[in-house]
Amino acid sequence: MTKINSVAVVGGTHGNEFSGIYLLRKWQNNHNLISRSSFSVQTVLANPKAHEENKRYVDSDLNRQFDISELANLDLANYEQSRAKVINNQLGPKGDAKTDFIIDLHNTTSNMGPSLILLQSDEFNCKMGAYVKSRMPEAVVVFEDHASVEEHYFLSSITPQGVIVEIGPQPQSVIRQDVLDWMEDMTRHILDYVDLHNTNTLPELPSSYEAFEYTETLKLPENENGERIGMVHKNVQDGDFKQLNSGDPIFTLFDGSEISWEGDYEAYPHFINEAAYYDNNLAMSLAKKRIVEI
Amino acid sequence: MTKINSVAVVGGTHGNEFSGIYLLRKWQNNHNLISRSSFSVQTVLANPKAHEENKRYVDSDLNRQFDISELANLDLANYEQSRAKVINNQLGPKGDAKTDFIIDLHNTTSNMGPSLILLQSDEFNCKMGAYVKSRMPEAVVVFEDHASVEEHYFLSSITPQGVIVEIGPQPQSVIRQDVLDWMEDMTRHILDYVDLHNTNTLPELPSSYEAFEYTETLKLPENENGERIGMVHKNVQDGDFKQLNSGDPIFTLFDGSEISWEGDYEAYPHFINEAAYYDNNLAMSLAKKRIVEI
Repeated sequence: MTKINSVAVVGGTHGNEFSGIYLLRKWQNNHNLISRSSFSVQTVLANPKAHEENKRYVDSDLNRQFDISELANLDLANYEQSRAKVINNQLGPKGDAKTDFIIDLHNTTSNMGPSLILLQSDEFNCKMGAYVKSRMPEAVVVFEDHASVEEHYFLSSITPQGVIVEIGPQPQSVIRQDVLDWMEDMTRHILDYVDLHNTNTLPELPSSYEAFEYTETLKLPENENGERIGMVHKNVQDGDFKQLNSGDPIFTLFDGSEISWEGDYEAYPHFINEAAYYDNNLAMSLAKKRIVEI
Repeated sequence: MTKINSVAVVGGTHGNEFSGIYLLRKWQNNHNLISRSSFSVQTVLANPKAHEENKRYVDSDLNRQFDISELANLDLANYEQSRAKVINNQLGPKGDAKTDFIIDLHNTTSNMGPSLILLQSDEFNCKMGAYVKSRMPEAVVVFEDHASVEEHYFLSSITPQGVIVEIGPQPQSVIRQDVLDWMEDMTRHILDYVDLHNTNTLPELPSSYEAFEYTETLKLPENENGERIGMVHKNVQDGDFKQLNSGDPIFTLFDGSEISWEGDYEAYPHFINEAAYYDNNLAMSLAKKRIVEI
């Protein structure tokens, strides 16, 4: 990995995820909190109109608009599709980006704690996970590396390197101090890591650590008409990153009956009952445990 | 108190408070779950358009539209003002209502557990609180009896008797099983109580119980321009109905400093950091403890 010269810290990609938006305001007034000597850093409020309207998005989810062919498709012109093109021009363009590293700040209504989502498992990212966990033992590292960074449609995929900081539980349109503090801490550790990487002064890191790798997304139970007929089982609610075994109850139907998970691996649910996932009737994501060796 | 002949169970007064909306669907298909021999019961989905749009309200908060003079003001014609007139016609009119008793079902993002909000402290209501707590020890009873029922602007004030069932914590636009179960249980106990009252077969109740009475609402910290400059202190977050003493920290400003509560009574915060209160920059309600003798 070469040196990282240019970093963007992005908040408000979803307009009702308040922590990043409030941190941006703080950092814009106190730039020294995010500046480091070995790189330049800018802040970007990604979806100001959605924040004004106190919504996740106005027309479509901004964090699903960064597919490289869709960025090039000028017929895609709704508000978020337009914002995506502007942000891609500002920080990218994807494939040949002028920015080296994006930190995209998100909240979830799920009980995920301070989670660091990484889109690839190269040495730089694996070491970053180790560094952040060494400074913040409650941090959880999740790899969503089932596709290449460029194939992802997330905002942070504009740059070859980037992270999603995902902190919860926090209801939409609320500021919780514990969640804000976690987000500020995790962002600081990530910026420190980049600086230590750049200056070749990384401390010794543990040789391995426990992380998770995304496997699949589960839908809420539906009938033939696509209507929701059940909910996340109370034993699973709030149990993000707790083990789920085949045969464990996972959904309760509104008629009182239960559905069990029938999988062939030890699963670790996360994004459990995330409010924003209801748009697509999604119930949760599943992961496997992964031991990362560095 | 005379016999209650006609009951309305209302859900979806706020369109993104899902528990009541889903319970209405269940009860509409299984009317026997809410029917009792001594009274008739109907269900009302109060704000269908807000639910369709997955919002609390479309134009203005429906649960603030039942002031008797505003109900009579035909110039107030936005969506919720119109819905209020229709519902008042269906269940009321306020002051001379054809319905005897309303149960209005709500969710909060605050950690209030299963709460029963009562707008007056007459014998009927005081005994209802005792009955519900005897069947559901985790229930909390809150009196908002600082004004007469008729002076309130809540939907449940259409009828001389009525309750607000307020259950949390639940993010907006989410269904949590624990919260749904609490709401179903509390509603069942209220309906049972009305039936036992009607048939003069109430069991013996404890002679007194602990409840709360609303005292005031606190705003989030603002600067001179009315901009939010702080948040609920992490020690208070999730501590609904836990004692707050003068001198305890209550807010953390974004600059890191803390503000303490300087009150002359032992306060019990509730609706702490409720998402819907941000519209008006409200932080929480306060209550005093009250021992109810029956």
